[in-house]
Order: sequence, then structure tokens, then C-alpha cells
Amino acid sequence: MTSTSRRAFLAGGAGVAAALALPTAAGAADQEPGGPEPITADVAVVGAGLAGLTAARRLAAAGASVVVLEARDRVGGRTLNHAIGGGKVAEAGGEFVGPTQNRIVALAQEVGLGVFDAYDTGQNIYVNGLAHLKYSDTGLLGTAPPDPLLLLDIIKLSQQIDLMVRNFPVATPWTAPNAAKYDAETLESWVRANAINDNGIVGILRPFTEALVGAEPGDLSFLHVLAYVAGAGDETHPGTFERLFNVRNGAQQSRIVGGSQLISERVAAALGSSVRLSTPVRGIAQTDSGVTVTSDAVTVTAQRVVVAVPPPLAARIDYAPLLPAARDLLTQRFAMGALMKVEAVYPTSFWRAEKLTGQFLTVGGPVGYAFDNSPPDGTPGVLAGFVGGTQNHIWGPKPPAERRAAVLAQYARLFRDDRFLSPSDYFDMDWTQEEWSRGGPTAIAAPGTLTSFGPALTAPVGRIHWAGTETSDYWQGYMDGAVRSGERAAAEVSSLL
Amino acid sequence: MTSTSRRAFLAGGAGVAAALALPTAAGAADQEPGGPEPITADVAVVGAGLAGLTAARRLAAAGASVVVLEARDRVGGRTLNHAIGGGKVAEAGGEFVGPTQNRIVALAQEVGLGVFDAYDTGQNIYVNGLAHLKYSDTGLLGTAPPDPLLLLDIIKLSQQIDLMVRNFPVATPWTAPNAAKYDAETLESWVRANAINDNGIVGILRPFTEALVGAEPGDLSFLHVLAYVAGAGDETHPGTFERLFNVRNGAQQSRIVGGSQLISERVAAALGSSVRLSTPVRGIAQTDSGVTVTSDAVTVTAQRVVVAVPPPLAARIDYAPLLPAARDLLTQRFAMGALMKVEAVYPTSFWRAEKLTGQFLTVGGPVGYAFDNSPPDGTPGVLAGFVGGTQNHIWGPKPPAERRAAVLAQYARLFRDDRFLSPSDYFDMDWTQEEWSRGGPTAIAAPGTLTSFGPALTAPVGRIHWAGTETSDYWQGYMDGAVRSGERAAAEVSSLL
Repeated sequence: MTSTSRRAFLAGGAGVAAALALPTAAGAADQEPGGPEPITADVAVVGAGLAGLTAARRLAAAGASVVVLEARDRVGGRTLNHAIGGGKVAEAGGEFVGPTQNRIVALAQEVGLGVFDAYDTGQNIYVNGLAHLKYSDTGLLGTAPPDPLLLLDIIKLSQQIDLMVRNFPVATPWTAPNAAKYDAETLESWVRANAINDNGIVGILRPFTEALVGAEPGDLSFLHVLAYVAGAGDETHPGTFERLFNVRNGAQQSRIVGGSQLISERVAAALGSSVRLSTPVRGIAQTDSGVTVTSDAVTVTAQRVVVAVPPPLAARIDYAPLLPAARDLLTQRFAMGALMKVEAVYPTSFWRAEKLTGQFLTVGGPVGYAFDNSPPDGTPGVLAGFVGGTQNHIWGPKPPAERRAAVLAQYARLFRDDRFLSPSDYFDMDWTQEEWSRGGPTAIAAPGTLTSFGPALTAPVGRIHWAGTETSDYWQGYMDGAVRSGERAAAEVSSLL
Repeated sequence: MTSTSRRAFLAGGAGVAAALALPTAAGAADQEPGGPEPITADVAVVGAGLAGLTAARRLAAAGASVVVLEARDRVGGRTLNHAIGGGKVAEAGGEFVGPTQNRIVALAQEVGLGVFDAYDTGQNIYVNGLAHLKYSDTGLLGTAPPDPLLLLDIIKLSQQIDLMVRNFPVATPWTAPNAAKYDAETLESWVRANAINDNGIVGILRPFTEALVGAEPGDLSFLHVLAYVAGAGDETHPGTFERLFNVRNGAQQSRIVGGSQLISERVAAALGSSVRLSTPVRGIAQTDSGVTVTSDAVTVTAQRVVVAVPPPLAARIDYAPLLPAARDLLTQRFAMGALMKVEAVYPTSFWRAEKLTGQFLTVGGPVGYAFDNSPPDGTPGVLAGFVGGTQNHIWGPKPPAERRAAVLAQYARLFRDDRFLSPSDYFDMDWTQEEWSRGGPTAIAAPGTLTSFGPALTAPVGRIHWAGTETSDYWQGYMDGAVRSGERAAAEVSSLL
């Protein structure tokens, strides 16, 4: 800590109260007219998504002065509330929370937000070729469809995976048994080598991985998939495939009252003027005594910096000196998925009266997986769908009207109900079109990445610390992983200030 | 073409003569003191490697005004001559040419440079576990080692691959039969599914792919590998695995007199002041009427721009408007390999008297593949080795003295000759440490990339055209592919000026 910082030496455990009255970063008095505004702080944070905001909140609570530089004109990163009238919202980005996602739920509670159950009463729809089935997720397979052609494989392969992730080293997947072998194959090639009905299983995995990570089974390192499954838990509950996949008792069980982006908005409000919007970071320069973070509008001099953006975006910052090769090559090998959320709004959630949950899973597009995304009181009715991976590549570039018509026609066809053709509102959000996300919902590791470069995902480089959901041990790719990563980065930095 | 351009309307076929007296790009007179220098040209080219220089040369020859913006303080990109005394050089980057690599050889000839045979007289060394064999590449297997444990697989798998690449659509690999399937698996998983001795073959493939693309067999999309093999030819000679792999009659057959970088230097000299060094491009903005290419030092207003840098580097330029999602996601999924060249210089190429070629192939590191890199007259003797992929990750971060000692000890051990321990000079070049390459020798596509995003590799985006060896149909990853890509981009642009 230098004499230019204004860190308040608070007693430990100051918590939220301190965050609400945090020491603010200092704008220096010698600003030149027209040049970037100079700011001094203990810690600069790049990115005001859940990871960056959590890190900043923790550091501020511990008495450090922080400044958060956000490229967008809003906070929340890959969460985004969309107003649907009457003061209600439907999320256009990340939204679900579930069992063992304790850190995001705790953060929500800290800022006064509760959770509610995602609507899951009634039957799901499954459409695959000639099969058009209704089923409840209270059965043996949970949210997985009861397709007789796939039944044996679903049971066999999910059990195999659950066995493989027992005692899995979630923070260091590259040390897992057979890590190099699993990292040298894709989820698809592993399935093809192990399934009875390999084409069938790969087919039904597509809408699943398209929704989960915006990619195809053949894009994913199998080791990365195992790490993802192993991370679907917490320190006392080992991850399971079922918890990742399911709504009931799974990662899609609950939602945030008021919409998930509200968490970030409240955390940012508590941080006050320390959060600078519309301030994309261009460069990070380190010296022995500090770090300088530059944007067009401000230049921040700090002791440490937390970079809380996905690896492919972190790659586009200029670092001086250059980062170690392993870190740069890592960022070249993590790529954002391709995901769009399409949402149709209806005066009521009329499918509930038909004893339908609103969920469907289907092979083919545009939408692979859809669900009821209505507000807590069910009015208006919102049916949201994921258009990911190959479906995103196909449908993303099409004219919006054509895409909307195809989505609504699909809803009507799969639910066998023409009321879906006439929503009162419709919107979609293609995360691949976002300059400051470049895809969604998360960055995925190409085969070979974790075993060759995994440690560089979190290893600090001098005064640079890395956060973002991709760096989390548990629930990477989820809001919970983002919060965990921010907590971890804040702890790293706090110990060094 | 706007009125501000100074394109000379030469008759067609002006060729080299025109290039040597090319219309120069115009520095406008209204430059503000201290601001970037404004330049107007028909075409801006980003990158003065072989691709960018070839494009610029072609365009200039056709009468267009061009300006080439190069980030480094030198031209040549991934080629680099290293002086070894007496006016002689050894290449620290790309250097080999071979049959069907007609475009690079033609370009060399145009600038007055010839080729000479890489030294290949005598026996190669192969060391793998207990096997320590000497063999000549004049046998059935060419440069491949005569390992009895691998013999059947080498014959079987290389024949399988050669069959698979017959009639392969080199410009559009994603349209090949079974493209989606092959793109959903890695080279390693394909080999494991098809080899008799899968561990043995994967083991010997490692030093091969480490040298070839700086990566491991498990990192590579099998479709990308097929495209690479299919591209080891030209319009009249279909690619073969043997031509890719071999020295004799293969891609490592010949070298450039004076060193490969000299080609770029001569092309740049002919382009004169149009080539701007130490000018990294930060942004490219398009309008309906033109394109503006910005760097710290200059701002170029042009009709078209050719971006001739590898995809992961192209990703780090700011584009306005944003590129289509498919192009951005493509650049996130191509990653540079990790490659270092280590070179030991001796007063003479003494191994030649021992009837050794200087080549070895071995499982383990630091060096996986070594070869005689002496000047045409064999004096001094230079033994070069590749430290790629995992070996690069291991040895790249080590202290230079430790790495040098390990390399020389390996040379002495494998050649059973302690003279290798005492070079008169030693240097290494780690391409992962290069800010403007970020790895080497080429960018490789993660599984799923070509089938989902392949067309975006070359498809122009408005006024932006893409070059670079990664975009070539034949000999992608090689100097010849770079030249081909520059010719293709120049043809695209010429037809639109």
C-alpha cells in the first residue's frame, strides 16, 4: 500500500455496513483538461459483473479503496433484466440458482433479495423424431426425458460420469486420474465410444449442451465436462450430473425475486461512485510498485488489479509487460459459447392450466430447451427458450421477424397449442452480439487446454488477479461461480495489501 | 475508389516492374502536430509477413496505392533470419519449402532468391524407449521411423488418412464427407479408435505434431488435421500425408538461399516507404464509403483493408461496427501453437562425416525433432531443434542456461557424440514470447470450429479481407500458404477497386 492510497484501517469483519460506507477511490486534483482522469485506489477491478462486483464489495468491506471499471453502460455482465411491464422483469441472461449455489444466494440475501421456485408443476414435453412425450420430472430420470431408445444410455452414462467425478479435484482438474486422456477427447467422442445408441445420445445431448454452454458435444473437452459436473456441488456436496441437469433439486430450481441483475445493481449502488460505467479498459501496466489500468476516460493507479472478465475478453487487454506465455495461450483456447435467449410474453401463463410446466426439450431448432420464465405471480406468462450452439449459428444471423415466427411456430407445434403463436410481446437477446461478452453463457475450454494451461486460469501474474465464473472451482459458468471467484480473488488481494 | 486515392491506372499485367515503381500511399498535408499522421491509400494491409507483403505487392503491381502497417520493427512475420557470422544466417522461424509449394518458390525467384536442398544425406536417428535406431529416409517409410512396434500402424493409418483426403474440398473442409463427425473428435481420439498400438502411435505423433503445429494430438480437430494433409499439395497434386511428413520429396526438402526472411525483406524493399514498421494497428472502422485503419502513429483512410495476421491476433483489433458473430467466435477458437526453435552452432557440421543427416525424432524432450540447419556450404554447422507443445510448456519458462544444457545433453545422448556439448554459439527463439505472433508456427482450430465457423475464415466482412497462412486452401500453416492467401486476398480486392 502506498501513501497515495486512502485505505481506511477498519477492524476486521466490517461486512456490509462498511461496504455501504466504503472509502471511495480518489480522483486526483491534477487532472489535465481533456486527458484521462487520474484515479488512485488500492485495487482496480475490471468488469462489473457478479465476479468483479463481489470482489470489490469484499475488498471495500475490508477497508480497501476500490474502483470498478465497467465497459458497458450498465452493471451485471451476463445477467440482464428485461422489463415486461407493470414493474416486472424477465431475465435475458443468467437467472437460475439451485442447491449448493450458496454464495450467490447469500449475496442476494445480503442485498435484500430472496429466491422463488422456478415453475415446475405439471408435465414436460419431449419431442424427438416420432416421439412426442409428456412426462413429469418427479420420476426416476428427473428432467431427463423418458425416451425408451435412450433410457439405458442415460442411466449408464450418467452413472459412469458420476463415478468419474467422485473425489474430483475441482480446483485442479488437470490432476484428476486420466486427465490427459479425457482432455484429449471430446464429450461426443467419449459418448460415441461408450453409448449403446451413440447417435441417439449425441442427438439429445445437443440441445442440452447448446443451452448449458452454447456449444455442441463435439466442441467440449471431456475433461472440461467432467470438471463442470464435478463443480455442480459445493465443499460438502460432491457435484453430480443430476444436480447440473435437473430443475427439481438442481441448478434450475430457483430464481431471484426482482430478477438476477438486481443483485449486481444493488451491490453497485452500495459501491457508489467507485463503479465507473462506459469505461472499457484498454491496458494494464505493472511495475514493482504498482499497477496502472488505462481506459479512454480514466487512468487508475493501484496496488493490485482484479480482472473479472472472461478469458477471451481478458486476452484483448494490452498488458505491459506481456503476460507469461501460458496465460496468453490459455486465453486463446477458451472461447465463448454461442447463446441467445428468446422470450415470448403472453397475458397469462395459460399452459399452467393445461398441467404443463412450460418446459420442453427437443432435437432440432430454433429452440432446444424452453421453460416458464414468468414472474413469481405467474402474470404475465413468459416462455423463454435457448437458441445455442449450432442453432445459434443458424438462427442468429436471420432477420428478427423470421426468427420470431420460427420460434413461435415451434412453441405452438411442440405444445400443440396455437395460443403460443400470438404473444403480447416478444424479445430476444443474442449474447454473441454483445461487444463486452462476445458470446455466452460462459467460456469453454478446447481439448488440451486444461492439462496444458489450467493453472494459468487463476494464478496471479504479479499484481494481476483473475476472477470470473470460468475461474471458479464450483459452479463455473454459473452466477454462483462468478460470486465464488470474486470472493477468492478478494481474499488473494486482501492478503497482499 | 474515391477522389482522394492516387491509384495509377496502369495497364493490366504490369507485374514486378510496376511493383518496383509502385504508386506510393499519400501522406496528407494537413497533419496535426503530435497527432497520428493521416495517410490515404487504395488499400491498407495489416501485417508485413509473407501474406500481407504478397497482397501488397500484387495490389501495387496492379496499380493500386497501398500502405502496409506492421507492428514489429521488422518485416517477415513468422520468418526470421538469425546472423551466425560471416554474413551467413540460420532461420529462427519458418524456413522449409518443398514440392507443390510453388507460390513461395515463385515469389522467391521474383525477388532473385533460389532454393537449395536441406541436408539429407546419411542416416536419421530414432530414439523411443529402448529403441535407438539409425535409418535412411530412402526406405519404404520415408522420414517415418522403422519402429517394428509401430510399423503396421504407420502404414495402415497413413493409408487411411490418404484415402480420406482424396477429393477433399481443401477450400471448404466443412463440406467434406463426415466433416461434422471428424470435427467432433481429436487426432488422438481418432488414432486411439483406429490403431493397433494406440499408445505407441500417440506417443510418436507427439514430437511430430509438436514440431508441425506446436500442439499435441489431443489438441487437434481431426477434420483440421485432414484439411492440413489434404492441403499438402496443389491444384494438380492432391495432398498426402507423406508429402507433409517427409524431407525427401516432402515439405522439408528445400530451403531459401540467404534465409527465408530475405524474401520478405526484398518484397518490402520494393514496396519502399509504403511499409510502415513499429505501427501496430489498434482499430478498423468501416463506413459505406471507405475504411479507416488506426494505429498510434498513423491513420489510414482506404477503400479496402487486408488483415494479414493470424486469427487470434486479428481478434485483438477493435472493429467498428463489430464483426459478425461467426467471425468473432471463429477467432476465439483458433489458437496459436506453442513452438520454440533451439539452435546450436558448431565450427563444422561434423555429423556429416559420421554419415548422419543430423535429423532425429524422439519421444521426450526438450527437442522432439532436430535437423541440420547449416548454410548451403555446411559451414558453420547448425543443428536446430523444435521444442513444441507440451515440451514448450515445460521448457519455455525455464532459465535459458538450464534449457541450453538440457538441449545439448540431449543432442550428445541421441547422437552418442559429446562434441554436441560444446557449440561455438547457441540461440533459441520462443515464438510464444512474441507479442505480435503469440505463438507459432500457426493457429490451429479447436474441434467444432471448422464446421461451425469455417466460412468466416476467408469471407470478407464489408471492406475487410482476410489473409494469412491459416486462410489458405493449400499449405496452410506454411510459408507457401501465406503467399497463396496474399494472392487470393489481392485478387478479391483488385476486383472491387
